[in-house]
Amino acid sequence: MDDCVFCKIIKGEIQHDSFIYEDDYSYVFLSSGPVNFGHTLVIPKGHYANIYEMPDEAMQKLAITVRNASRSVKEATEAHGINIMMNNDRPAGQVVFHAHFHIIPRFQGDGFKHWESKIAYKKGQAAETAGKIKEKIIK
Amino acid sequence: MDDCVFCKIIKGEIQHDSFIYEDDYSYVFLSSGPVNFGHTLVIPKGHYANIYEMPDEAMQKLAITVRNASRSVKEATEAHGINIMMNNDRPAGQVVFHAHFHIIPRFQGDGFKHWESKIAYKKGQAAETAGKIKEKIIK
Repeated sequence: MDDCVFCKIIKGEIQHDSFIYEDDYSYVFLSSGPVNFGHTLVIPKGHYANIYEMPDEAMQKLAITVRNASRSVKEATEAHGINIMMNNDRPAGQVVFHAHFHIIPRFQGDGFKHWESKIAYKKGQAAETAGKIKEKIIK
Repeated sequence: MDDCVFCKIIKGEIQHDSFIYEDDYSYVFLSSGPVNFGHTLVIPKGHYANIYEMPDEAMQKLAITVRNASRSVKEATEAHGINIMMNNDRPAGQVVFHAHFHIIPRFQGDGFKHWESKIAYKKGQAAETAGKIKEKIIK
């Protein structure tokens, strides 16, 4: 897509010194706004705004790259753990509308806090909610 | 694995009312500790402690289920966005050591905060770090 910053990076139209890996389906590079040391992005070469739009083959290829990059980032940064995150849509924190997985190295005591629960289901509400999602499931 | 709570759920040894979907490779159900309404877990049927251990086929199949479930959860909960998260290793917040993807519906103004940067690369350090990860990349 012409005005997509990630498409421009893939095409080499934006210079950067954070290239890690590419193949026919995926491109891997360091985030320019890292939350932690070694924060890496894995993106599909095709332009899909988010996970909902990704076709099967691109999704499957990207998943293998996400797994491989998680192993590589952990080893190279000597991280104690890895968080994988993906934000889809603006209310979920998505800023660049080209699907991307964040691979975030974690180190003992680095102080990042996970989200605490904001809800509790009333009696029967979990079953009802599961049922609603079940109805919408795409096999 | 005998003492794994997710393996027990898959085998039907733990009763719950939050079942959503299963196929030969994946099992989908509502989290019993939801951070937000409709918080769903997607897990592989095989026992792998984390993403690093997942074989290609299981990874690819699970990725398709994660995408499909993201669409379904968004539609069923009328969410404004979806975060996908995966915690690998205890310092990254992993509690159950059977690989699992969190699908977290997000709603405008729900108040969850994303992590702010804790680091900045010195001159040349991004390129050096990218280079180290590149050396470890598994193709």
